Amino acid sequence: MSDVKKVVLAYSGGLDTSVILKWLQDVYQCEVVTFTADIGQGEELEPAREKAKKFGVKEIYIDDLREEFVRDFVFPMFRANTVYEGEYLLGTSIARPLIAKRLIEIANETNADAISHGATGKGNDQVRFELGAYALNSNIKIIAPWREWDLLSREKLLAYAEKNGIPVEMKHKQGGSPYSMDANLLHISYEGRHLENPAAEAEEDMWRWTVSPERAPDEAEYLEIEYRHGDPISLNGKTLKPHEILAELNRLGGKHGIGRLDLVENRYVGMKSRGCYETPGGTILLKAHRAIESITLDREVAHLKDDLMPRYASMIYNGYWWSPERVTLQTLIDQTQQTVNGWVRLKLYKGNVIVTGRDSKTDSLFDPTIATFEDDAGAYDHRDAGGFIKLNALRMRIAANLRNKK
Amino acid sequence: MSDVKKVVLAYSGGLDTSVILKWLQDVYQCEVVTFTADIGQGEELEPAREKAKKFGVKEIYIDDLREEFVRDFVFPMFRANTVYEGEYLLGTSIARPLIAKRLIEIANETNADAISHGATGKGNDQVRFELGAYALNSNIKIIAPWREWDLLSREKLLAYAEKNGIPVEMKHKQGGSPYSMDANLLHISYEGRHLENPAAEAEEDMWRWTVSPERAPDEAEYLEIEYRHGDPISLNGKTLKPHEILAELNRLGGKHGIGRLDLVENRYVGMKSRGCYETPGGTILLKAHRAIESITLDREVAHLKDDLMPRYASMIYNGYWWSPERVTLQTLIDQTQQTVNGWVRLKLYKGNVIVTGRDSKTDSLFDPTIATFEDDAGAYDHRDAGGFIKLNALRMRIAANLRNKK
Amino acid sequence: MSDVKKVVLAYSGGLDTSVILKWLQDVYQCEVVTFTADIGQGEELEPAREKAKKFGVKEIYIDDLREEFVRDFVFPMFRANTVYEGEYLLGTSIARPLIAKRLIEIANETNADAISHGATGKGNDQVRFELGAYALNSNIKIIAPWREWDLLSREKLLAYAEKNGIPVEMKHKQGGSPYSMDANLLHISYEGRHLENPAAEAEEDMWRWTVSPERAPDEAEYLEIEYRHGDPISLNGKTLKPHEILAELNRLGGKHGIGRLDLVENRYVGMKSRGCYETPGGTILLKAHRAIESITLDREVAHLKDDLMPRYASMIYNGYWWSPERVTLQTLIDQTQQTVNGWVRLKLYKGNVIVTGRDSKTDSLFDPTIATFEDDAGAYDHRDAGGFIKLNALRMRIAANLRNKK
Amino acid sequence: MSDVKKVVLAYSGGLDTSVILKWLQDVYQCEVVTFTADIGQGEELEPAREKAKKFGVKEIYIDDLREEFVRDFVFPMFRANTVYEGEYLLGTSIARPLIAKRLIEIANETNADAISHGATGKGNDQVRFELGAYALNSNIKIIAPWREWDLLSREKLLAYAEKNGIPVEMKHKQGGSPYSMDANLLHISYEGRHLENPAAEAEEDMWRWTVSPERAPDEAEYLEIEYRHGDPISLNGKTLKPHEILAELNRLGGKHGIGRLDLVENRYVGMKSRGCYETPGGTILLKAHRAIESITLDREVAHLKDDLMPRYASMIYNGYWWSPERVTLQTLIDQTQQTVNGWVRLKLYKGNVIVTGRDSKTDSLFDPTIATFEDDAGAYDHRDAGGFIKLNALRMRIAANLRNKK
Repeated sequence: MSDVKKVVLAYSGGLDTSVILKWLQDVYQCEVVTFTADIGQGEELEPAREKAKKFGVKEIYIDDLREEFVRDFVFPMFRANTVYEGEYLLGTSIARPLIAKRLIEIANETNADAISHGATGKGNDQVRFELGAYALNSNIKIIAPWREWDLLSREKLLAYAEKNGIPVEMKHKQGGSPYSMDANLLHISYEGRHLENPAAEAEEDMWRWTVSPERAPDEAEYLEIEYRHGDPISLNGKTLKPHEILAELNRLGGKHGIGRLDLVENRYVGMKSRGCYETPGGTILLKAHRAIESITLDREVAHLKDDLMPRYASMIYNGYWWSPERVTLQTLIDQTQQTVNGWVRLKLYKGNVIVTGRDSKTDSLFDPTIATFEDDAGAYDHRDAGGFIKLNALRMRIAANLRNKK
Repeated sequence: MSDVKKVVLAYSGGLDTSVILKWLQDVYQCEVVTFTADIGQGEELEPAREKAKKFGVKEIYIDDLREEFVRDFVFPMFRANTVYEGEYLLGTSIARPLIAKRLIEIANETNADAISHGATGKGNDQVRFELGAYALNSNIKIIAPWREWDLLSREKLLAYAEKNGIPVEMKHKQGGSPYSMDANLLHISYEGRHLENPAAEAEEDMWRWTVSPERAPDEAEYLEIEYRHGDPISLNGKTLKPHEILAELNRLGGKHGIGRLDLVENRYVGMKSRGCYETPGGTILLKAHRAIESITLDREVAHLKDDLMPRYASMIYNGYWWSPERVTLQTLIDQTQQTVNGWVRLKLYKGNVIVTGRDSKTDSLFDPTIATFEDDAGAYDHRDAGGFIKLNALRMRIAANLRNKK
Repeated sequence: MSDVKKVVLAYSGGLDTSVILKWLQDVYQCEVVTFTADIGQGEELEPAREKAKKFGVKEIYIDDLREEFVRDFVFPMFRANTVYEGEYLLGTSIARPLIAKRLIEIANETNADAISHGATGKGNDQVRFELGAYALNSNIKIIAPWREWDLLSREKLLAYAEKNGIPVEMKHKQGGSPYSMDANLLHISYEGRHLENPAAEAEEDMWRWTVSPERAPDEAEYLEIEYRHGDPISLNGKTLKPHEILAELNRLGGKHGIGRLDLVENRYVGMKSRGCYETPGGTILLKAHRAIESITLDREVAHLKDDLMPRYASMIYNGYWWSPERVTLQTLIDQTQQTVNGWVRLKLYKGNVIVTGRDSKTDSLFDPTIATFEDDAGAYDHRDAGGFIKLNALRMRIAANLRNKK
Repeated sequence: MSDVKKVVLAYSGGLDTSVILKWLQDVYQCEVVTFTADIGQGEELEPAREKAKKFGVKEIYIDDLREEFVRDFVFPMFRANTVYEGEYLLGTSIARPLIAKRLIEIANETNADAISHGATGKGNDQVRFELGAYALNSNIKIIAPWREWDLLSREKLLAYAEKNGIPVEMKHKQGGSPYSMDANLLHISYEGRHLENPAAEAEEDMWRWTVSPERAPDEAEYLEIEYRHGDPISLNGKTLKPHEILAELNRLGGKHGIGRLDLVENRYVGMKSRGCYETPGGTILLKAHRAIESITLDREVAHLKDDLMPRYASMIYNGYWWSPERVTLQTLIDQTQQTVNGWVRLKLYKGNVIVTGRDSKTDSLFDPTIATFEDDAGAYDHRDAGGFIKLNALRMRIAANLRNKK
């Protein structure tokens, strides 16, 4: 273990990563660089600096990555209408490659030879961090304490903390929640405890960002999102930066009880797990993006995207953001978004996101003169449909003929 | 035109198909057999018999196909979690192949040499009827009046009706609605009129089966659905027939404002069109089926299904239910459902369908002892994850190495 | 019919298109512009000019499109290792979009309002010409004589030719062949006559470009092809233009009996048809391109390409070269070719194309130190494989456990 | 390590597995059961029995699995026209799941708690053995000596053999070959040594089963294969068992220089490796199966199969034969083969497999009256093609219109 000289640790300032910090210093006898990122998780970062200093850390990185996170990760993913296993909006998955990238960048800047993270040995996040890191730096060493140490029970971890003078003010994880949580600008996730029984309903007081539909306002709220090249650029006529848009949609969605999800999903490491997710802004964006695409994308292009989406979602879920196949697929997705320009109007009401209108001045392929029922002004000849059907039926008629003969 | 001797007409008893009936007798000089089906559209069928008699029709078929419709068409489709273009539950599409099948059966029984239907020349339904018919009987003749006659405007049609003594009591289509509608046990669809502008919101008084979320009860309602081999078999502990289940879910969903959809979709005939759909029971079933699959299906089997679903949906949307490729794909889908047994609990509230629990006594692949965070009882060794990641990263590390050398 | 003023005809100078030329002048009473292209079919074009002049044609286009054909159509297609239905190299299909494009360009230049072609009403080529033309010019009129006129039998056509003084020197089609043929730099195709019985062997004297393997030289010939960005750029060290490379490979392949194919394929218009194809250079290129990709493409990128290839092939076969979905998919394909640089050595012998070596100085992902069996120098730890297998097996073990309990 | 009581070893009788046998007895101090299978590798099995006895093994299994191998593994795979990465016929991959199955069956019969195999830690075979074993028995222990011991170099292995009195008569692997080889009824594979440089040509004296095309007979040989439900059932009119058919095709193919392949492939464990393969019979079967399918399969069914084939091939290559997703996909594949009945005639000549005819009395969808060029007897109306094209073009015309307006 002695061959690691300096390690960059993804450090939240919480109990677990503080224990890891200390443990790295003790066991690996190496210098630790801490990296704490604001990706919209809604926690103050300065306390992390103070804590790191107390551990004698000299190189402390605290970065506001919110804009980069939404612009370069969340929005590209939403261009594909991405959902994993039909429902999950990949809120945790999409943040990991950004962290991996920054860990490697900081390792390069500080001449560190290793990185470390606090993801457990049974989850997807270790995979996402490490595949990303290896893809970006083939020689990086990775220390995953949860796979190495013997502090696997909560009790042992707390004992270690106490012994090493690490303040255990919060016996439970984030903010006193008994759940294992992860938060960023796209979502909060909840796992563990009461959720380990998939037959049991999630408790109302678990949720942090959204009110329940029951407690949402009795009055609906309308919202207009403008899109350019597949990305939202303004809300209700006001141009905003990517992360500002998502933050505002989170506020609106949260207020109206939008974006809760209770799911049993299949982890990449081979087990099923039950998770609850709050993705208020993302839930609105998924609906809105499909709506603007519905009038601006060619049918076969849209279907090609739909066919490839589950594969793209799995790439992200499994941690392959920085893989060549994800980059290749992104090229295709992005190419399709050139014409995805226009606006979508939505109604938010007690958990519902309802599309009430969509239009594109420049790129609408919706042609009312052709779709109309009664008008028949030349572009479309009813009689053509007969030939269309006959030729499409031909192979089936030949087969039916053969069956008849038998 | 004179070579048709007897034609089976899909006859609703409404104005349009009554005009067609008369027109067939006049223009084709052939005998007409009428076929009227109850597929849950919620209209009395006996008036159709009376009307047909008035036109001198001797062979009148009136069939209750509700059970067959749900058992053999709707449920098999839901086994695949089928949605077209991300959202449409295919309520119209899935009914057409059943009608096509009965038209051909009746043609065989009555020695008719042709069938006829009232679908327009710009829509998908003509394709669905006719592909189905040709696939089942390669020699059938098909008369599609809307592609042949000159009664293309509403005015001409009404004039023809009046001239021929066909009661025009309803100037508008179904039940006085200004919209072009289609209804069956799975859904009602609305097209035309105000909807032809995709930027405009649908009017509240258009909807027939569902109250608005705003007007739904303030109290949530819980519901338990039991599944066997991927199909729902009981509601709240009460075993019901397929069509009874769907009818009851429609009632519950409609009461709670569930299942409205406002969509611009891509027709098979090449144009975009805007449709609104009410699918209360189907919307519940889609959520519930995904939930029961989430604990009973293997990950890769589920992903294979997800990858193939859009293709399967297009087959149904485009009218290829009776094609060999749909039958082949159904074989795969059905094979996966052997283990899809258990129950799902749902909460219905003002437009929301919320999964609150799912379990399977016999087939749950959810193993709490493995998914647990703290316990580590042998089935899963944290250290294995390191090797898993390293080998999955290998090709990316080799590539990163190569980039470094450049 | 009288509304067409000027039509651009794809004119080969042969009997069929000469009859069409005359028929257009007679029946449509419109001016005809002729367009004759050299795409490597190996026929002199100047006779076509003379013939067109005799018919009074004033605007005569004769273009050498060989370089454009290979550079912008054949090579992009080969980047995807494209084969239709497992075997067909799409020699006819890939030439049609270029012809369609030139027809539309010439129509624009000459202010023609229509185009015309000599493809029959049962084949794929009419679809390819016309889909291409419509995609490029939504208002173009298209005259497809074989779908309109009554000269459907050979006898009637010859009678019309004789009546109109069109020289019928060749009673049979191309060069006295009894087969329906199509030739360009990529291939010759043969259909009809003896081939209409798929149980019967093709006759040896049908083939034009290749000797039989039996009559090929007894000595093998080695060949080295260099690739840049997925396209061949030199042969045996000599840099050549795209069409020069293909022409030289045709010569070499033809000499060594390479590239014959006897196939029953599924036409887009719904029927099966039997075709024979000679694609000597293309057959070599397919092998060579796969070989250079085998060392320069990432596994998952290669697999993504393989998964999409049949769809891409169908797009081309069915005539959708100019569709947005083909353009989108091409974006993905082309992106993957950035690293496809290096050389491939092949051995040609009596019908065989044998890869004997491949290398890439700049982009080889083949790492002998990792693939070696006995060496174990750190990059790859044998023990990692255990964890890799265990986690990949986990879901199957959980399922096996469940089966055991039952 | 002491917790293993009895282990079933896949035992070839060669040097490596003999060393493993001894090593298991020494290090694990457990009883060893040997299992030696005839899957057509062409070696005598009785010497393995004698050797095992010398090591004191009491339970010795020697099975002739040739029929089961071809009937239940090779033929089902060929129903899908399976090739990995465009070329590899999966000869090694398809044998592993059968060995895994027998290892587990014998473990159950002999109350063994573990299995062991001689596959190395860098290859695919360890994965295939172990995934198969875990899928069939979730509690089995697996000992993979090559991942555990320190005999990683040839020298150490030989020293261990000598020290333990294991006859080292063959310093090189199989039959004196310097290559790492694997053989069964479907193929022989070669890896290592001269092949580790992918730029270098394979040496002629490496190949065992096939003559070079140069040394193959100067006279072609014709062959007729009859298919029932997608499987070959007779050769030249003589009904044979599955393994007899494959053996005879190997003889014929080998004689005519058919089925050599030189490939760089992507291993599941993450590296590229170069392999050479001889698959004479399989190469013939792939061509023949495609040919019989070409006249008996519906177009869309065939395309669905083609689209899924690479995924199916990867499942087999990666070791997922016993996975639920492979079983599910096999259901689809097998369903399509019901109509794949008829015969194919082939010509074998110096490395070439040439299809010269195919027919099916009962299931041919090839209809000469429709495919014919000149006849127009009603089944197909040329004019229908116009409507077919117009509707297929509609979406592209609408888009072209929009571009025009811009």
